[in-house]
Amino acid sequence: MAARLTLQPPGLDELQQAQTLLTGLAHHTPVLESRTLNRKLGCRLLFKCENFQRGGAFKYRGACYAIASLSPEQKAHGVATHSSGNHGAALALAAREAGVECTVVMPWNANATKRDNVLRNGARIIDCEPNQQAREEALAAWIDFSRAVPIPPYEHRDVIAGQATVALELLQQADSLDALLVPVGGGGLIAGSALALSWKQPDLPLLGVEPAGADDAFRALRQGHRVRLDQVDTICDGLRAQIGELTFAILQQHVEAILTVDDETTIAATRLLFERLKIVVEPSSAIVLAAVIQQPQRFTGQTLGLVLTGGNVDLDRLPWHPASR
Amino acid sequence: MAARLTLQPPGLDELQQAQTLLTGLAHHTPVLESRTLNRKLGCRLLFKCENFQRGGAFKYRGACYAIASLSPEQKAHGVATHSSGNHGAALALAAREAGVECTVVMPWNANATKRDNVLRNGARIIDCEPNQQAREEALAAWIDFSRAVPIPPYEHRDVIAGQATVALELLQQADSLDALLVPVGGGGLIAGSALALSWKQPDLPLLGVEPAGADDAFRALRQGHRVRLDQVDTICDGLRAQIGELTFAILQQHVEAILTVDDETTIAATRLLFERLKIVVEPSSAIVLAAVIQQPQRFTGQTLGLVLTGGNVDLDRLPWHPASR
Repeated sequence: MAARLTLQPPGLDELQQAQTLLTGLAHHTPVLESRTLNRKLGCRLLFKCENFQRGGAFKYRGACYAIASLSPEQKAHGVATHSSGNHGAALALAAREAGVECTVVMPWNANATKRDNVLRNGARIIDCEPNQQAREEALAAWIDFSRAVPIPPYEHRDVIAGQATVALELLQQADSLDALLVPVGGGGLIAGSALALSWKQPDLPLLGVEPAGADDAFRALRQGHRVRLDQVDTICDGLRAQIGELTFAILQQHVEAILTVDDETTIAATRLLFERLKIVVEPSSAIVLAAVIQQPQRFTGQTLGLVLTGGNVDLDRLPWHPASR
Repeated sequence: MAARLTLQPPGLDELQQAQTLLTGLAHHTPVLESRTLNRKLGCRLLFKCENFQRGGAFKYRGACYAIASLSPEQKAHGVATHSSGNHGAALALAAREAGVECTVVMPWNANATKRDNVLRNGARIIDCEPNQQAREEALAAWIDFSRAVPIPPYEHRDVIAGQATVALELLQQADSLDALLVPVGGGGLIAGSALALSWKQPDLPLLGVEPAGADDAFRALRQGHRVRLDQVDTICDGLRAQIGELTFAILQQHVEAILTVDDETTIAATRLLFERLKIVVEPSSAIVLAAVIQQPQRFTGQTLGLVLTGGNVDLDRLPWHPASR
């Protein structure tokens, strides 16, 4: 694997460093469970609540560690990324805390709440057209001009090391898991989780969960190489990204399977988490519960760790409202 | 005080018993805080999350302890109450767990979600007209027929002893509070909190919070006797009840002040808790945050305990949606 890759995965020492550094900076998020859900599904579900993380998503971990790993000179130039979602807000927050300038390239039609999250954390927003090429060009132009350090959302070893701390924490909080379920978008979280498990509990099965309408990682795993989807159609806005080169290589080595879930089940699961756990989560989080709802017999009697990745939903348009579909 | 009362307040031994008994039966709910809210309001807010309690509200504590305190013979007759809200569902849940029959008299127009919560916990619902007299008559008739033991929502010493465990837990979780803020409806929670403080931390100021549109306890405290409001108008459906005789007597002895809050501030506070803490709470809970938002200067630099009482909201009609007002 390593020989063909442009980037190298973080080593165990970096995971350890990330964990030490994030202590006190990131929240040690709680693990919640619901007896009703357990009874209903015939297994024990332990939810790692990264929706309670600073900035409302696990993304803060990777952003924070990536910034902390910069040299003083790099910090002086500031950081930059393109993002339409949680990574931009997380990077802005982590940068502000570290006293580092931050610029986020965003498509002009990005969600108002997410735009506000970036601005509120004191970052600069540069608008671009809503397509991948325009994003990349606008970011490259800014970096050229400012010499800012790019911190991409997942294809970055420090970011992956930071995201690995979610699973490291969960393994300390719940010591008898039969499997770990993690959503898959660009793959930063699942790659970090894979490295964490290979360090701490190599026999624990790791399952990825993807929307049926954005199942590029599922297909990639079957075909043995990354695939670009012609069209992406899912309510899970955090899971629309294509998996990265590095994150896919890690996933390929460590992930037992990727389960795909239709949006309807994910929306029902989102509502169940609001109702039963009394927490605010995004569909991109609730998809892990949806995967269990879809085939409970697969998990009967097991204890499952499920990572709820974030809670940044538009409270004026909750997923189950007709206007959101 | 005691001489004029029909009922006596629970003693410290009963609070202690309640705490012992509820260990393992009720959830030990977490305390959450948000740096953003703390910064915004200039004080430290520690939220005791009873929205995570079993049944979605602190009411489970009182119901559970009241049922546990029954004799085997009483248990054989079952329990009954009238309720349009969380107490009915909590009693049903506690009764099911104890293997006790439960009947809840409900106005025919009660919220569908709350009706469903009662049925799901295996209780019998008897419908009545939506007014206090019809409720009481229907309950009396049922008790006459079945010899069931009535467990009222707040005017009951075991119920108060159960609710006291919220504050007992919080005092263990947060040891340097400057004040405790608790919503006031029928007064079970604030009476329990008062007794808990008088036992553990008699100098800690206890503040009640009430909707301006249902401020009977505020007026009662000023006038020195209970008052019946001609009209109650508030979105806080958990706080519409008139304060009880026993709960008022306890409140009068221990409560420093009652703060009243308008619904608009409470709705904004509810939304803030969804957005910042990523938790689902009722307006009847968020009112404690609203009280701080309304006059932050009163609390500058302080560490406040705030009890979030429940999270049973209608997810199709969140409080800030136009249809809810």
